Amino acid sequence: MAKPIAYSVKAYGTPGATAPLAPLTIARRQPTAGDVQIQILYCGVCHSDLHFVRNEWGFTQYPAVPGHEIIGRVTAVGPGVKKFKIGDLVGVGCLVDSCRACPECQAGLEQFCPEMVMTYGSADKHLGGGTLGGYAQGIVVREEFVLRIPANLNAAATAPLLCAGITTYSPLRRWKVGPGQKVGVVGLGGLGHMAVKFAAAFGANVVLFTTSPGKTADAQRLGAHEVVVSKDEAQMQAHAGSFDFILDTVSAKHDLNAYINLLKRDGNLVLVGAPSEPLSVAAFPLLMRRRSFSGSLIGGLPETQEMLDFCGEHNITSDVEMIRMDQINEAYERMLKSDVKYRFVIDMASLTAEPTASA
Amino acid sequence: MAKPIAYSVKAYGTPGATAPLAPLTIARRQPTAGDVQIQILYCGVCHSDLHFVRNEWGFTQYPAVPGHEIIGRVTAVGPGVKKFKIGDLVGVGCLVDSCRACPECQAGLEQFCPEMVMTYGSADKHLGGGTLGGYAQGIVVREEFVLRIPANLNAAATAPLLCAGITTYSPLRRWKVGPGQKVGVVGLGGLGHMAVKFAAAFGANVVLFTTSPGKTADAQRLGAHEVVVSKDEAQMQAHAGSFDFILDTVSAKHDLNAYINLLKRDGNLVLVGAPSEPLSVAAFPLLMRRRSFSGSLIGGLPETQEMLDFCGEHNITSDVEMIRMDQINEAYERMLKSDVKYRFVIDMASLTAEPTASA
Repeated sequence: MAKPIAYSVKAYGTPGATAPLAPLTIARRQPTAGDVQIQILYCGVCHSDLHFVRNEWGFTQYPAVPGHEIIGRVTAVGPGVKKFKIGDLVGVGCLVDSCRACPECQAGLEQFCPEMVMTYGSADKHLGGGTLGGYAQGIVVREEFVLRIPANLNAAATAPLLCAGITTYSPLRRWKVGPGQKVGVVGLGGLGHMAVKFAAAFGANVVLFTTSPGKTADAQRLGAHEVVVSKDEAQMQAHAGSFDFILDTVSAKHDLNAYINLLKRDGNLVLVGAPSEPLSVAAFPLLMRRRSFSGSLIGGLPETQEMLDFCGEHNITSDVEMIRMDQINEAYERMLKSDVKYRFVIDMASLTAEPTASA
Repeated sequence: MAKPIAYSVKAYGTPGATAPLAPLTIARRQPTAGDVQIQILYCGVCHSDLHFVRNEWGFTQYPAVPGHEIIGRVTAVGPGVKKFKIGDLVGVGCLVDSCRACPECQAGLEQFCPEMVMTYGSADKHLGGGTLGGYAQGIVVREEFVLRIPANLNAAATAPLLCAGITTYSPLRRWKVGPGQKVGVVGLGGLGHMAVKFAAAFGANVVLFTTSPGKTADAQRLGAHEVVVSKDEAQMQAHAGSFDFILDTVSAKHDLNAYINLLKRDGNLVLVGAPSEPLSVAAFPLLMRRRSFSGSLIGGLPETQEMLDFCGEHNITSDVEMIRMDQINEAYERMLKSDVKYRFVIDMASLTAEPTASA
């Protein structure tokens, strides 16, 4: 394939694992057949962004531009694009391409495609190097990986739905959370606050587990029917064997067995945070109630669109704190201290307003 | 409740964790309403028996009499017994009672009843002390916990179905193992050899994992379509991401992640062995393919009868090595070395033939 024609956009990224994020200019391909060119209006700040730029997963190529909770307007479409036209409000999540042919892709589970292309950190088939994410003025993405954003929602507050939203919506749907069920959510961060909103919207009795007693009122405002301080053993013990389902959103090392013990017979603890160290799981509590422990990873494109449509119908968005692009390094430090309610979103107009960096 | 009238039977048991098994005389209650009195013909030897008599789970009361793979003939029935009559060939597995009222019992999942009474090692509501198992001439059990044994099967070889059989049958059924599926069985012992037979009978493509290359021919005879030596990394890697389901029958500490990596998207690794140390489970392999890790525990009474009937229809029994009661200590040592194909069964006539021990 001939290298497509490229153009430049302003972005924020890093030249190495220890450098702060700073302005840089990056290339995007001119839209070719099936491509949608998007002016980015907002980009959510995911904890994965920070793991990635600091190379905490060990596969980062530099320069690195993170960002996979992208909301924008279509500014051009390539030949053959049918789903979108100039001016449409659209979103892009964690994926920008996949093989589109394998059984996973056929099943609409592109996140499990062996050739899936992540929005940042994958090989860029078009321009070479690594794919570059949404901390930028614009991006060009195949139409199959572009999502429609319901017009009634606050656009900035929909950005986190593209990762935090689908990551929690998908397991709650797959394990059929609904009325009559007691559902736990572990952790009240970017993922956890969306899990509480969705589980409540699905009609479940929602219990939030947190290490911070100060989060009780806010958790209730978000939809939790009960809040348990997980450090309080008596509170934990009072819920033993009573949960149908628990969604664990915590990435830090923590004791899973304390939560497995809260499940009913045939209950399931699903992990969507990704602790880097192996987890210690006791066999007896699994055997003695036929419990399961599972993982879940974002969601496929059809389910992501379903989630966005559901959010439109039920007026669900993320609770966000808006920042300027040049506040990103400070935002990372605050995110590390869980000092955000509940997701930072970058107003990308602030990047456009910056003077252009030297390349 | 007034203490029921008791009678004595010969048995084998231990007075403490470090003593070998030896003859002793134990009490059984005279059959009361709903009770079935059974002359024990055969009793299988389960690894749990050894854990129990040596107090490796920490809850053993002494004297301890193990044995929960019991085949016998009905010699008397108490008032109101409808399912059984004198002379019937019957079985008793790991449970001899439960509350018979809770949701678990109503669902036929008595193994999860909070008040379930194990055949050995639970509190004996009738005679006090601990329940005493099947290394004995006879036992008295409520009719709901007595199973019909198909007449066409070799009676001695059906004994291990009552624990090793149902422990493997139940998860294979629950996770709907059948034709078109690739199913792994980890370990070829008492449990593993039954899992291979069942998974093959259900029509799955069965792959046995073993650390012993010498077991290949025997595994194929039992129904395995392929045998993988689990120490051989290249052999393991060749199966990465290809299994629908893996049943792990190994109680010793081992690397679960090596098997989780062999599962397809949405595949499940189910543990029926019970390692006493916590297991180390990596989060990423679970997340990246939405895999699950579950436990399973024996089976309820309706499913145990279903399993026995299935075995009758398909001529499935355990491969057994018969021993005399007085060979039990030697059998334990051989079991610890996996030197048995694949289950020891005690011929209880050998106990009746022994001179009576002093009480």
